[in-house]
Amino acid sequence: MSKKIKSLIDQLSSLKTGLHEDDFLLTWEQSDADLRAVLLAAEIVEELYREGIQTPAFRNGLAVSIFRDQSTRTRFSFASAASLMGLTLMDMDEKKSQVAHGETIRETANMISFLTEVIGIRDDMFIGEGHEYMKEVSESVKEGLREGVLPQKPAILNLQCDRDHPTQSMADLMHLQKTFGSLENLRGKKIAMTWAYSPSYGKPLSVPQGIIGLMSRFGMNVSLAYPKGYDLMPDIVKKAGEFAKASGGKFEVVNSMEDAFADADIVYPKSWAPFSIMEERTKLLRSGESAKLGDLEKQCLANNLQHKDWECTEELMKKTKDGKALYMHCLPADITGVSCKQGEVAASVFERYRLRTYKEAEHKPYVMAGMILNNRFKDPAGLLKKFLDDAIPRRGGK
Amino acid sequence: MSKKIKSLIDQLSSLKTGLHEDDFLLTWEQSDADLRAVLLAAEIVEELYREGIQTPAFRNGLAVSIFRDQSTRTRFSFASAASLMGLTLMDMDEKKSQVAHGETIRETANMISFLTEVIGIRDDMFIGEGHEYMKEVSESVKEGLREGVLPQKPAILNLQCDRDHPTQSMADLMHLQKTFGSLENLRGKKIAMTWAYSPSYGKPLSVPQGIIGLMSRFGMNVSLAYPKGYDLMPDIVKKAGEFAKASGGKFEVVNSMEDAFADADIVYPKSWAPFSIMEERTKLLRSGESAKLGDLEKQCLANNLQHKDWECTEELMKKTKDGKALYMHCLPADITGVSCKQGEVAASVFERYRLRTYKEAEHKPYVMAGMILNNRFKDPAGLLKKFLDDAIPRRGGK
Amino acid sequence: MSKKIKSLIDQLSSLKTGLHEDDFLLTWEQSDADLRAVLLAAEIVEELYREGIQTPAFRNGLAVSIFRDQSTRTRFSFASAASLMGLTLMDMDEKKSQVAHGETIRETANMISFLTEVIGIRDDMFIGEGHEYMKEVSESVKEGLREGVLPQKPAILNLQCDRDHPTQSMADLMHLQKTFGSLENLRGKKIAMTWAYSPSYGKPLSVPQGIIGLMSRFGMNVSLAYPKGYDLMPDIVKKAGEFAKASGGKFEVVNSMEDAFADADIVYPKSWAPFSIMEERTKLLRSGESAKLGDLEKQCLANNLQHKDWECTEELMKKTKDGKALYMHCLPADITGVSCKQGEVAASVFERYRLRTYKEAEHKPYVMAGMILNNRFKDPAGLLKKFLDDAIPRRGGK
Repeated sequence: MSKKIKSLIDQLSSLKTGLHEDDFLLTWEQSDADLRAVLLAAEIVEELYREGIQTPAFRNGLAVSIFRDQSTRTRFSFASAASLMGLTLMDMDEKKSQVAHGETIRETANMISFLTEVIGIRDDMFIGEGHEYMKEVSESVKEGLREGVLPQKPAILNLQCDRDHPTQSMADLMHLQKTFGSLENLRGKKIAMTWAYSPSYGKPLSVPQGIIGLMSRFGMNVSLAYPKGYDLMPDIVKKAGEFAKASGGKFEVVNSMEDAFADADIVYPKSWAPFSIMEERTKLLRSGESAKLGDLEKQCLANNLQHKDWECTEELMKKTKDGKALYMHCLPADITGVSCKQGEVAASVFERYRLRTYKEAEHKPYVMAGMILNNRFKDPAGLLKKFLDDAIPRRGGK
Repeated sequence: MSKKIKSLIDQLSSLKTGLHEDDFLLTWEQSDADLRAVLLAAEIVEELYREGIQTPAFRNGLAVSIFRDQSTRTRFSFASAASLMGLTLMDMDEKKSQVAHGETIRETANMISFLTEVIGIRDDMFIGEGHEYMKEVSESVKEGLREGVLPQKPAILNLQCDRDHPTQSMADLMHLQKTFGSLENLRGKKIAMTWAYSPSYGKPLSVPQGIIGLMSRFGMNVSLAYPKGYDLMPDIVKKAGEFAKASGGKFEVVNSMEDAFADADIVYPKSWAPFSIMEERTKLLRSGESAKLGDLEKQCLANNLQHKDWECTEELMKKTKDGKALYMHCLPADITGVSCKQGEVAASVFERYRLRTYKEAEHKPYVMAGMILNNRFKDPAGLLKKFLDDAIPRRGGK
Repeated sequence: MSKKIKSLIDQLSSLKTGLHEDDFLLTWEQSDADLRAVLLAAEIVEELYREGIQTPAFRNGLAVSIFRDQSTRTRFSFASAASLMGLTLMDMDEKKSQVAHGETIRETANMISFLTEVIGIRDDMFIGEGHEYMKEVSESVKEGLREGVLPQKPAILNLQCDRDHPTQSMADLMHLQKTFGSLENLRGKKIAMTWAYSPSYGKPLSVPQGIIGLMSRFGMNVSLAYPKGYDLMPDIVKKAGEFAKASGGKFEVVNSMEDAFADADIVYPKSWAPFSIMEERTKLLRSGESAKLGDLEKQCLANNLQHKDWECTEELMKKTKDGKALYMHCLPADITGVSCKQGEVAASVFERYRLRTYKEAEHKPYVMAGMILNNRFKDPAGLLKKFLDDAIPRRGGK
């Protein structure tokens, strides 16, 4: 095992990345080497953990989380990554403090960063907001470091914004890598990222956008499917097309779940709200016309109802490669007859893949650790080599 | 001191328990050796702490708490146990995540467990619910380990359910052991577990049930007293009777506080809601008839009012062995003229025993640590021996 | 650098303080040596941190926070200090527990302290309450230690009460020390602690009181300015006068911002509510007449409106020494045209000093660490010497 880990460390040390002290907010802004470095560091930390070896990159310092939306998986993943790295977890509960927008973001960003190594942010509720907020926090702590306010600059971790969900998509990629044996083996594989019916409203676009923006870079055949009107943000769709071309893969947009599933190796059926609706929602909120929000929600749910047939059924699964495509989901899924009357996926399909969706989720803490290590250390490979060599047990005292 | 600790470690290492990787949810399901192993490990950790020796069983990993009811003592005890064991504390605030019943318990249980060594749960509000929930979480993470989803399986700690409150009752037992010198010395001692009047409604049954289910196993003379109608769950009362018989002790149910106090060595006067009312309450909640809950509460409080004389007064204390029985309470107590107009105990009685009730509570973090060590380590005695031998100071740097 | 740190440690070890096991609740109750010891320990910890050296005074144990008011800066400073010291952070969320006043403060204080090294408390909302509460907690854990309930006694940290805000004022003093080179250099410097207009109501008195009560002890020329009626608590104002006299400084109260600013080296313009209003507010709250609170607020805001000209403008800044006085603020400031329509300070003035206010805030975690070390260790200098000698890196594994 130690031999395998050594080989991964060698691969990591050979990469030239731009990750040190630079924030990884959107996968499509990062180089291929950056992506591989995060994946490798994540895999190494996971192997060390499973070998029972501790990885205390820090002996003190804070890992701060800011959740502007509910979360279970990501919240616990972040806490786990903090624990792996030896950091003290501190949640920035905005109701317990007095954070406002505008002028004070740079102030707050510095105030919470004096001894902070990483700030994880979820801000996915409003189109045009989350990513902008993260950039502003990132710029603010850059200024803080430059001007001597901060002794070090925390890494900003995107725990889901309006555009991307990189810790999810990278964990998903790690899951594919494990399932198919290597990144190379993903070449030519067809992945169907398709809309699915859900009785709930306003699910973010960041997961489907994250998937098409990332999987298109590994020579995969990406099929994006949704009912007419349920578009994603056009600039990201455009990027996915360009990536596919550059990586020797394919990218298509279709309006039929069946077409997307046909001969697919992987299916990712998941609901989202149309971009136009999400934009309208943000406008109403900004202009204070919250009274009209209820109408918008009603309209959106009524639209959804016309596409109840967008469900990942046993019949549809039969259309996939040998009827055995890998089913993926970021969880929780809307399961027909289980978590709702009718939803994204048939109960029998979900149950067959249930444990595999758990494994899919399992990689998230390590992906976050991989991002932290690459951002905070100039030579993450050297540090990981040290952990391997020291081999201090993570349990059983010392 | 080190000699005393060594002797405790020797005793622990001689015990054959079924605790490793198995959850301790109800004391009456555990063997005598299991109970003694938890007590011994707790005592050793407490002695090491008081000697200023650190006990970092883990170097990373999470201790997750799920509180479905308010808590001060248990919340802080759990945080303290986590700190003693070297774990990162993470509270599962259900309002900040989206936990539902049914299908999703197994999902959530796995999602919060990827790097988790212990999950502490308080779920004591509804008869028929708390214990079932804990069992489901326990089964879920067993599946997770078996199927390779989890790298390790967290211990499930019952921090109070509808049936038992084992960290309380074990801490109470530890208090008795210290007060009377040994477990052996408890043989033949009379303990009065009696209902007492409180102006508040719906106090859980788990403390009195936990006390009679545990103390009956050590040859004690257990007297359970309550006004007619204030029954506990019948299967647990039955078990207490069987345990008393087997251990050479006695068990009686009486309907007079005076009878219970007569010649008692220990008194534990505490309010609870009648089992039948608690069952009715669960039924109303399940059928959605929450409108009727107010009526039920009114009726219950009216019933309580008829038993205002069930108060632990100076006069009653005089009936106990030499008038000096040990007064116990899990805190907070309803103290007449202090925390309420009329309550469970007279102010002068409580004040005389106040500091002893604090000491009673003090054992809880160590009991939790004892449960964690026995669950997570095959040879907890060996690990504790290592801590003693290494004797690394827990303060003052290293 | 190590030479500088050694010299600071030598200075610290030469001081005779009363800080060990004694709580530092109000700066004016502490000796000069006490103040210097906290400053020195804070400076040493900060230097060690910036040198990348870890300072784990504890290997386990809790740092408990109780916030009875919102907080960002102090909350994160406390978490940072806990992390620096190696403690597990635990917030006492009173909504999640059942804390009441009176009898139960001593109970709760002990219940949360079994493995606790420090309790940080913010309780600044009501005149006559916060400091009393802290004293009660302090007395309670003293009893707990004395009676054998607690294995150790946590330090009580005043994170802002109705009277003083010592972690703020000490951090401010540290900022002045750095800005002017030494405490000695502060002698004769004029500091204007002045009221300023704010559109919000009920800001605590503890910051201005903390400033005049502390800065008057270092030979400074303290000018306290406010509109008629906006008095502070008279006993603290009296103390400031006495301190100034004893330290060879000056203390004056004026009713003009201009007079205070004239030739000032330092200005600290900040809003507060008049003492008489705050007293009235407490009375109404205690007597349950909360309906009248709205009227009081209206009246207070109407009063404020008459003093809109109390703003720290460019024009006023020109009156200060060479037009270049150091502007200070505890943050967040009410900035005209930025965080409010009209407020305490002009946008251009604030912007010029913005990064310096961040640096002012930066010292807080270290001041808290300095207080913890002096309270919990008999020989904090010896411990810090050990950290310096061991020089274990705080990042990069070990």
